[in-house]
Amino acid sequence: MKHLIEKTLSSKRIFQGRVIDLYHEEVELPNGKTSKREIVKHPGAVAVIAMTDDHKMVMVKQYRKAMDRILVEIPAGKLEQGEEPIETAKRELEEETGYTCDSLRHIISFYTSPGFADELVHLYLAEELKVMETKAELDEDEFVDVLHLSLEEALTYIQTQQIYDAKTAYAVQYLQLRSAIGE
Amino acid sequence: MKHLIEKTLSSKRIFQGRVIDLYHEEVELPNGKTSKREIVKHPGAVAVIAMTDDHKMVMVKQYRKAMDRILVEIPAGKLEQGEEPIETAKRELEEETGYTCDSLRHIISFYTSPGFADELVHLYLAEELKVMETKAELDEDEFVDVLHLSLEEALTYIQTQQIYDAKTAYAVQYLQLRSAIGE
Repeated sequence: MKHLIEKTLSSKRIFQGRVIDLYHEEVELPNGKTSKREIVKHPGAVAVIAMTDDHKMVMVKQYRKAMDRILVEIPAGKLEQGEEPIETAKRELEEETGYTCDSLRHIISFYTSPGFADELVHLYLAEELKVMETKAELDEDEFVDVLHLSLEEALTYIQTQQIYDAKTAYAVQYLQLRSAIGE
Repeated sequence: MKHLIEKTLSSKRIFQGRVIDLYHEEVELPNGKTSKREIVKHPGAVAVIAMTDDHKMVMVKQYRKAMDRILVEIPAGKLEQGEEPIETAKRELEEETGYTCDSLRHIISFYTSPGFADELVHLYLAEELKVMETKAELDEDEFVDVLHLSLEEALTYIQTQQIYDAKTAYAVQYLQLRSAIGE
């Protein structure tokens, strides 16, 4: 694979933030020439397909500053230091939706933007949901509305671009596939 | 939706790159408190599910600096200034794989990392592929191998984490769904 791999010649941290760090790197290309790479470092995140017993997806509506718009997404959040992804999944589900779950299993993990960022999202399926007696608290800078959508409603939300992000589109398609193969 | 929306108090550009820009912003939260947001601006990108007449997906194997590893992905690339996404899709397919196509249609668009970036990926389905007589040229800092994978092979690549990114996972699931509903 030598004809594909790049070698780091220098790496400079441009920014260290609360969520992401930015690096500017000089690399040696496989042909010996040099180029620059812009790299965002991210701690990783989880996302949760949360299904109620009556087959509704629990979603959150929230404002996203990067796009200056409100999106409807499956519950999600970034990994805290030293936290196992499955713990993050349970915590984010509880904090964002007020549900906890008796069944939580890993579906798939994927990098979201491999061209410029190392963010890896771990996707879980939460079932056997129960409303929590005492609602867990959101982060102090987080504000969300909780929605319950049938698969048909979720597909309409995709058509109208209210659902407009990769992990949620993957989640809806996952349920379409599960329904098509009769699981 | 006022109880969700954040107001920009200040915005500072930290970095202006070839691919991404980074902004650090101060916002007023819906409850009147303030917080900071780290925002990556990206020109947007396309990705192409390219199917040969014998039902193979055309994929590219490439080194990704952000993760320091080789990934197998569907052909993709970022929008150039003033370029329509469907033109980018055709160009990237030709440059990365050496195929052109007679049929190209939009499937879905999605933000990849709404928590920190505005990258929007437009996904296309390319069919009726033809090998180009004169191969289009890759960007001078791009090195890729072309692969042809059946759906079954692609699913194995997901299990072994050689396919490990959101757009390609979505694409494979799209073909699974199409196969399940007999299209």
